[in-house]
Amino acid sequence: MSARPQTPTLDRVNLPTDMKTLSDRELAQLAHELREETISAVSETGGHLGAGLGVVELTVALHAVFDTPRDKIIWDVGHQCYPHKILTGRRDRIRTLRMEGGLSGFTKRTESSYDPFGAGHSSTSISAAVGFSMARELGGDPGDAIAVIGDGAMTGGMAFEALNHAGHLGKRVFVVLNDNEMSISPPVGALSSYLTRLYTGAPFQDLRAAAKGAVGLLPEPFQEGARRAKEMLKGMAVGGTLFEELGFNYVGPVDGHDMEQLLPLFRMLKSRATGPTLIHVVTKKGKGFAPAEGAADRRHATARFDPATGQQIKAPSNAPSYTKVFATSLIDEAERDDKIVAVTAAMPEGTGLDLFAKRFPRRTFDVGIAEQHAVTFSAGMAAGGMKPFCAIYSTFLQRGYDQIVHDVAIQKLPVRFAIDRAGLVGQDGATHAGSFDIGFLTNLPGMVMMAAADEAELRHMVATATAYDEGPIAFRYPRGEGTGVELPEHGEILEIGKGRIVAEGTRVAILSFGTRLSHVMEARESLMARGITPTVADARFAKPLDRDLILRLAREHEALITIEEGAVGGFGSHVAHLLFEEGALDRGLRYRSMVLPDIFINHASPSAMYAHAQLNAAAIEEKVLGVLDVAMAKRA
Amino acid sequence: MSARPQTPTLDRVNLPTDMKTLSDRELAQLAHELREETISAVSETGGHLGAGLGVVELTVALHAVFDTPRDKIIWDVGHQCYPHKILTGRRDRIRTLRMEGGLSGFTKRTESSYDPFGAGHSSTSISAAVGFSMARELGGDPGDAIAVIGDGAMTGGMAFEALNHAGHLGKRVFVVLNDNEMSISPPVGALSSYLTRLYTGAPFQDLRAAAKGAVGLLPEPFQEGARRAKEMLKGMAVGGTLFEELGFNYVGPVDGHDMEQLLPLFRMLKSRATGPTLIHVVTKKGKGFAPAEGAADRRHATARFDPATGQQIKAPSNAPSYTKVFATSLIDEAERDDKIVAVTAAMPEGTGLDLFAKRFPRRTFDVGIAEQHAVTFSAGMAAGGMKPFCAIYSTFLQRGYDQIVHDVAIQKLPVRFAIDRAGLVGQDGATHAGSFDIGFLTNLPGMVMMAAADEAELRHMVATATAYDEGPIAFRYPRGEGTGVELPEHGEILEIGKGRIVAEGTRVAILSFGTRLSHVMEARESLMARGITPTVADARFAKPLDRDLILRLAREHEALITIEEGAVGGFGSHVAHLLFEEGALDRGLRYRSMVLPDIFINHASPSAMYAHAQLNAAAIEEKVLGVLDVAMAKRA
Repeated sequence: MSARPQTPTLDRVNLPTDMKTLSDRELAQLAHELREETISAVSETGGHLGAGLGVVELTVALHAVFDTPRDKIIWDVGHQCYPHKILTGRRDRIRTLRMEGGLSGFTKRTESSYDPFGAGHSSTSISAAVGFSMARELGGDPGDAIAVIGDGAMTGGMAFEALNHAGHLGKRVFVVLNDNEMSISPPVGALSSYLTRLYTGAPFQDLRAAAKGAVGLLPEPFQEGARRAKEMLKGMAVGGTLFEELGFNYVGPVDGHDMEQLLPLFRMLKSRATGPTLIHVVTKKGKGFAPAEGAADRRHATARFDPATGQQIKAPSNAPSYTKVFATSLIDEAERDDKIVAVTAAMPEGTGLDLFAKRFPRRTFDVGIAEQHAVTFSAGMAAGGMKPFCAIYSTFLQRGYDQIVHDVAIQKLPVRFAIDRAGLVGQDGATHAGSFDIGFLTNLPGMVMMAAADEAELRHMVATATAYDEGPIAFRYPRGEGTGVELPEHGEILEIGKGRIVAEGTRVAILSFGTRLSHVMEARESLMARGITPTVADARFAKPLDRDLILRLAREHEALITIEEGAVGGFGSHVAHLLFEEGALDRGLRYRSMVLPDIFINHASPSAMYAHAQLNAAAIEEKVLGVLDVAMAKRA
Repeated sequence: MSARPQTPTLDRVNLPTDMKTLSDRELAQLAHELREETISAVSETGGHLGAGLGVVELTVALHAVFDTPRDKIIWDVGHQCYPHKILTGRRDRIRTLRMEGGLSGFTKRTESSYDPFGAGHSSTSISAAVGFSMARELGGDPGDAIAVIGDGAMTGGMAFEALNHAGHLGKRVFVVLNDNEMSISPPVGALSSYLTRLYTGAPFQDLRAAAKGAVGLLPEPFQEGARRAKEMLKGMAVGGTLFEELGFNYVGPVDGHDMEQLLPLFRMLKSRATGPTLIHVVTKKGKGFAPAEGAADRRHATARFDPATGQQIKAPSNAPSYTKVFATSLIDEAERDDKIVAVTAAMPEGTGLDLFAKRFPRRTFDVGIAEQHAVTFSAGMAAGGMKPFCAIYSTFLQRGYDQIVHDVAIQKLPVRFAIDRAGLVGQDGATHAGSFDIGFLTNLPGMVMMAAADEAELRHMVATATAYDEGPIAFRYPRGEGTGVELPEHGEILEIGKGRIVAEGTRVAILSFGTRLSHVMEARESLMARGITPTVADARFAKPLDRDLILRLAREHEALITIEEGAVGGFGSHVAHLLFEEGALDRGLRYRSMVLPDIFINHASPSAMYAHAQLNAAAIEEKVLGVLDVAMAKRA
């Protein structure tokens, strides 16, 4: 562990009120120390680094000028909030970030009154800020609402919906566009090109003088309802017509690392703005930490590292990640099938499609943070004769749900959904849990839904999805490493709707959907020592169900237990429905369904989360003993 | 019934190929006759009228110039497609629109190869068109893709996501912006104001001459990848910078009812365009039919009518609609609680919030076709101390699902979801069915979910939602009239998570969630004649469940049947899970769950759809007899 940085100014600031007595020079020093403290903390905890480093000055300037928590700063996504947490009473816990019982890696309402609106997913901040603003106008909580949103997040459709509505309402609300030319990957989309044009070749204006002058000189800077108030700041603005066309006052671009620009500008806007105002701030992700500035991803998320060198400290991995197995399997299929195309919503690295893109750049589409479009764009390509693989994390797929129903399922279009980060995900916590996809997809007529029990199964499912062309098909797999099982060179095409017996046994059958299978087998080992040998099966498909297998298990055992990494309403509910319809439970079968509990589970290690969720080997063993004990008691 | 119009030119056109030999003058005549035929057909069937009348000339011009179905016209929403259907081989069935076994009221892939991508929901067409375009570029189906999208639909975030992506890709694709200043209600949002500014005060350019000239004169009108190609059409364009900033070539505005402008323009674009091109067409919804042009909603959707006078032929109603009861109940609550605000996504009439808006204009927010923003905006207002009622149809709420999970449920914010059109909806068919909300909402930790059994219950649920402030709460109710039950003056606050016994009985209990209750009671009457008297209960809540009630019903009956207007994975699945966990089924209880079947059900009358779904009184009776017969057989 390196020595912690010297932070004399920061040491005087526990809450934003402590900043009110600092001079502008001291605030600049505060920013410097805040950056060092952030780097030091994340070097110990790992986590999101680049985004926070990019907004250090912005964080100081906003808290120095506005009256938080009365004024509400809403950080979009929230992964840039570590400096904000340090300044808002949480410095003493900042080195517990993303650990069990420690601070969340995102903003969170239950954690602090300085987090007026939590996040995790992208593009929500403007909607929330407009909501706070209108509440204020109607007698709700007072204070300003300030959304801070990246240029990547601005590509999400709901950000546009919110801008459109805010421009229509015409009420005071601030949107700070944090233009760092990066979301997680380099940005895509025409909007990013547009933003770049706004400041490329046009040097930053001398906003310091202009803004200082503006406070005194401008008579009526923003007139309520006057859409054309842009003239007011014309001396400062070089562009921004897109935002002006949507009813916003546009200010910028501003150098987001220059406190001498940010402070007077925010002071002027705080005292004068009356309508919706967009401040275009240009920052550098990873700013001030050479290993981050030099990295391709600007050190978006990092393991623990040596703060002196930036060298990350990673545990050696024993098996390839599911993500990588998906990517290499898809590349293998695509070598032999030129109709395969891949779609990601701004997560090429996270989904492994960066590897696919290297091999097949023309067949890879990164559509930006735009899951709705990703799904329907994939549907359009499927209708046009291609074989699209739409790779979206379970939690983000929620954002494309209507498109899955309306554009894919109703039309029976063969879009392949590769659902990474299914189940509990660890440090990212509740906002990123992949808990609901089994339910919301198995609901849909005609959907085929698979879950991989291990990485070899995943390879087979990629092959199966490639071959299946009759309608939509989805396969889910978790975050993290596989089980280390041997990988076949090519995937095998699985029979649709057929599971497999993994181990024969008696009395009780456990039917697993997904990667709980290894925990089921662990529980089986332990149960065998007690004289109970469960039959274990891997369902492979939650839809269509393997009726023969399920009814056979029901006939031949006293009890049947299903297990899945998802909430009630998914695999187990469909199995139960089949058993009801067939009258299987009327014949005395005991059925139990192991699912995620009905709570949002806070961040911790995945294994701790699954223990908490009662879905680990110990819990499976207990469930088996419970269901059989009851049976024995009744018989006696 | 009036005499059908004389349509000599239209009579010569069965498919678009038949239009290729017509002169421009004949095409204009064809448009005239097509309008008369559309009015005549809808006067017999009812349906969407205004939108179709607005695009008659556009429909003729697109089919005359492009080579459909090789070239793909994608009608956004699809409710403007009746003229298109008449021209594409479906004239003989046009008077079966929206009837059981008849033509769909929307585009539908299974209906015709001229419907390359179906619709029903808004804002999907550009994504689909971009998908077709990229499929073509990669060796999939050839031909052009042309999205036709209204200015209202353009406010949906996914339209913006698609524009952003299309601009980035830079490939040839056409977007016809059908600017009629109307979605279903007058448009909201800054975008609409912007569009209006584009043509207000700037008369339509003489595109005829310019476009005709352009074909011969312009050397390289659209250069691949050349973002700044706008100069090419500068003589025609008066604005459009927003679209240009997103990488589109902007053409317009054009008079969408002038064939002499549309035909040469499309011809020129077909032969010359190489990049993404937006054609801004100004039309009048309801054009050419005075009763529609004069109506506030431009006769968006209509009952059957007299084509001479426009007088609608409506069946007299016996009871107020659920929609109206919701509206009057909310107004009643809002009279006494000034924190209540109401949010609609461009459906003020459909949700009844037009009535609320008349009484409380400042407390009503129409956010445009923007369900994602509607939800998070509501969450922001809730966080700011207000009591938002977010009124969205079940099927459209799918589009705000991630926002419900991430911004509302995880944060336990007290947003009230008023879910109209729950269950099967009749003539609008599968795309508008409210089948999945019970499942996707009861999944969520902390959500409270109610369904109204009749209109008095709905009034109580509005009162209950007003009073409940601990987290999110939803209540669902169907399309159409109530049961005629007496309405209390004010709603009563229901106890959260408590159902009610409606009728005592023996042997079998039926636990209903929602408006199937009256059908259950009908079945009970019929069963009593056979000597079986079921206990009937109204669950009121799918979450939290009334454990005491459910376990009592389980203890005191041989069989328990749940019924709901939703898919597997909802109410019944949660009841089953409770029964499993409590071991209630191990004691010999027979349980059955009546849900929507696992198919997308085509348009028909709601009662025909529920009969098909096996959820009417006859099916309930049969289910009871089945479950008891089995029981009796076993005992014997």
